[in-house]
Amino acid sequence: MNQGTDVDIDELREAWWLLSIEDRLAGFRMLDAGAAGEFFSDLDPHDQAALLLALRTQERRTWLRHLAPDDAVDLLQEVDDDERAGLITLLDHATRREVTVLLAYKEDEAGGLMSSRFARLRPDMTIDEAVGYLRRQAVSSVELETFYYIYVLDAAQRLLGVVTFRSLFSVAGSRLVRDIMRDDVVTVHEEMDQEDVARLFAEYDLIALPVVDPDGRMKGIVTVDDIVDVVEEEATEDAHKFGGLEALELPYLRTSVFSLIRKRAGWLIFLFLGGMLTATALGQFEDSIAALSFLTLFIPLIIASGGNSGSQASTLVIRAMAVDEVRLRDWWRVARREVATGVALGAVLGAIGFVRVFFFPGAIAELGQNAVLLMGLTMTISLLGVVLFGTLVGSMLPFLLRRAGLDPASASAPLVATLVDVTGLLIYFFTASYLLREFFGT
Amino acid sequence: MNQGTDVDIDELREAWWLLSIEDRLAGFRMLDAGAAGEFFSDLDPHDQAALLLALRTQERRTWLRHLAPDDAVDLLQEVDDDERAGLITLLDHATRREVTVLLAYKEDEAGGLMSSRFARLRPDMTIDEAVGYLRRQAVSSVELETFYYIYVLDAAQRLLGVVTFRSLFSVAGSRLVRDIMRDDVVTVHEEMDQEDVARLFAEYDLIALPVVDPDGRMKGIVTVDDIVDVVEEEATEDAHKFGGLEALELPYLRTSVFSLIRKRAGWLIFLFLGGMLTATALGQFEDSIAALSFLTLFIPLIIASGGNSGSQASTLVIRAMAVDEVRLRDWWRVARREVATGVALGAVLGAIGFVRVFFFPGAIAELGQNAVLLMGLTMTISLLGVVLFGTLVGSMLPFLLRRAGLDPASASAPLVATLVDVTGLLIYFFTASYLLREFFGT
Repeated sequence: MNQGTDVDIDELREAWWLLSIEDRLAGFRMLDAGAAGEFFSDLDPHDQAALLLALRTQERRTWLRHLAPDDAVDLLQEVDDDERAGLITLLDHATRREVTVLLAYKEDEAGGLMSSRFARLRPDMTIDEAVGYLRRQAVSSVELETFYYIYVLDAAQRLLGVVTFRSLFSVAGSRLVRDIMRDDVVTVHEEMDQEDVARLFAEYDLIALPVVDPDGRMKGIVTVDDIVDVVEEEATEDAHKFGGLEALELPYLRTSVFSLIRKRAGWLIFLFLGGMLTATALGQFEDSIAALSFLTLFIPLIIASGGNSGSQASTLVIRAMAVDEVRLRDWWRVARREVATGVALGAVLGAIGFVRVFFFPGAIAELGQNAVLLMGLTMTISLLGVVLFGTLVGSMLPFLLRRAGLDPASASAPLVATLVDVTGLLIYFFTASYLLREFFGT
Repeated sequence: MNQGTDVDIDELREAWWLLSIEDRLAGFRMLDAGAAGEFFSDLDPHDQAALLLALRTQERRTWLRHLAPDDAVDLLQEVDDDERAGLITLLDHATRREVTVLLAYKEDEAGGLMSSRFARLRPDMTIDEAVGYLRRQAVSSVELETFYYIYVLDAAQRLLGVVTFRSLFSVAGSRLVRDIMRDDVVTVHEEMDQEDVARLFAEYDLIALPVVDPDGRMKGIVTVDDIVDVVEEEATEDAHKFGGLEALELPYLRTSVFSLIRKRAGWLIFLFLGGMLTATALGQFEDSIAALSFLTLFIPLIIASGGNSGSQASTLVIRAMAVDEVRLRDWWRVARREVATGVALGAVLGAIGFVRVFFFPGAIAELGQNAVLLMGLTMTISLLGVVLFGTLVGSMLPFLLRRAGLDPASASAPLVATLVDVTGLLIYFFTASYLLREFFGT
């Protein structure tokens, strides 16, 4: 770092993954205060933790307190138990208590999303008492996450019901909270997956959901503003899987090139190894290829059509599963629809394919009308077969994956294409061997 | 319909698109009351409108009033102006006024998402007056969409600021609303696209956003619970485009097979026509193929590798653009990263490809070690070239599309694969023509 005292935040970000921890520290200290705050907040928890541990105790305290409690939790999850205990003591008292509770949860479950700062009441308060109590809670220094719903808890912190502000405002002050609360509350348990939590929000159009433990004790609330992030995160994860790579954990521009390569190489190599079967399959037909090289011209077109129709089918089923429109038990309905669709699409491409082969420049002159007619028919049958097969594989693979407990989004466009390639070649060459056998001179 | 009086809601849904309007009406009337309500709500606005117009006036009133105001608006947008005026008179007074206002907006813009039921105050009220006023608003029959933020408007309905419930609760009752309100309010204008509105919610973690007209008059609020649906909708639309089909407007199982075919046939035919170039390209090399049929065995593997690496790159860039992590001006940074990634991935596949060719069963015995060595080298160079090219096309095409004002998500896996196929073949056969020319016997 020979740049004097003036370090640009974007430059530091770009160079970050290449730098040693000492250079990172030096670069970070050269940022002005505002930029340093922004830079630190934007780092992923892993890098935040490494940087924090390289700092002096007083700086550690400053930067750790710079983070919101849930972000502090993410950071603390990245360090050893010994270090963690030391870092927790640097927090102020209220945050420390909250962080300790949240540390027990995984990041992608309800407990990891929740805040323990919610408004609460006792059932036997009058409305007037409740309003006075809420006033004192509002004045106290702790910011409440939401003031939209107020939760009614018993002495053991068990959730009894919920009242809205609106209801507090619209009834006589002498009535009891117990009498105006709703007790049919939708709740989530602490370990519920964030994707399922998001689905509940979408289904019920809620602002907040209470999180309860198995004994019905209320632990916190998840608010809908965090759910918007969850939905985007899950959509990104699914899109990455569907594109044929491991989902990135960080934004694209903040992922190091090395990590980009790692996330992509695995699937690419796997698909390449799988794709080798096409060479094996073609090897079986090398004599036919040598005898009638015209056949090979259409290999890419045939297999691409299978891959494309498969990609369409799998994307439809994966998204429908992601938003819970299609469930496992719908597989038969989906299969019937896809067979009908596949036959129709295959027939359309088959017809175009026939025309293409029949009018291929010089084909009739070279091979004779009869051979070209049979070649066209081979093309039509193969396209019908490969599009139907692609559609079926694309639509059923997500069901198989989900059935096996895996993510349906792994039925990626490249995976479906690879699975369909070999079959496409077999359909094509078997049809050709049958229809065109007299031209192979065997 | 020979099923007597007992019609199953799922059966009716499945058969719906096949039925004439008379059969639809008959089927709908055979549902029991609860099922009919669920069925009607779940229909898309177009079918709702057609069904409603087939009903008698008294039934029309019932079912139209069954819908929430914004859903009623969606239905009313599907009918002629004459019919619409008649239907609007069937609504109760308050809903009628709201519906008339909302009808002026498109479904996918802020105005189409908003509700006009928000809590409002005047700036010169005291806090005590404000609380009393809100109490009366809460008791009145109209349900307010959110009671979290309260908007402060002047006599001309211009938005001056916002107060939270929390702030009303934590200050002395004699102070003025004007003194405690925040006046740096994030607002959206009525025509803002829903995708941009969603991005604001994600950025600021808000519960609600006020919608204002060009003169600063407040028209309504958009609440975050509707935004969860928008984010899911947009993710589905992008996924469909990326899978290589036109985005469906309805859930998969509610889309007719005919419409499924139509949405998929367009792209499939377009890609098929584009893919025909592969046959043209291969036609140029027919002599090489005839001379060395071993070459053809690896065609599918080469082009699939280009398509797969392109699909990875485009999915990363499309998602990063969708969540606003990558913008147009980042193209050069992305290009540099992708070149590095493409070279690395191409080198890995190239190395595996070399081994595969060299140890291909019977190859050395048939062609001699020298030819197989050169063939392996051809494979390595081609894979390096095609993976690098696929990565570049996949990552840059979304930028070109956005630059041209189109949706980057149209840089679908199948489109990228098709673009890369022809180039892959050219790289492969040109390399082969050069390295293996002595074996072609020309």
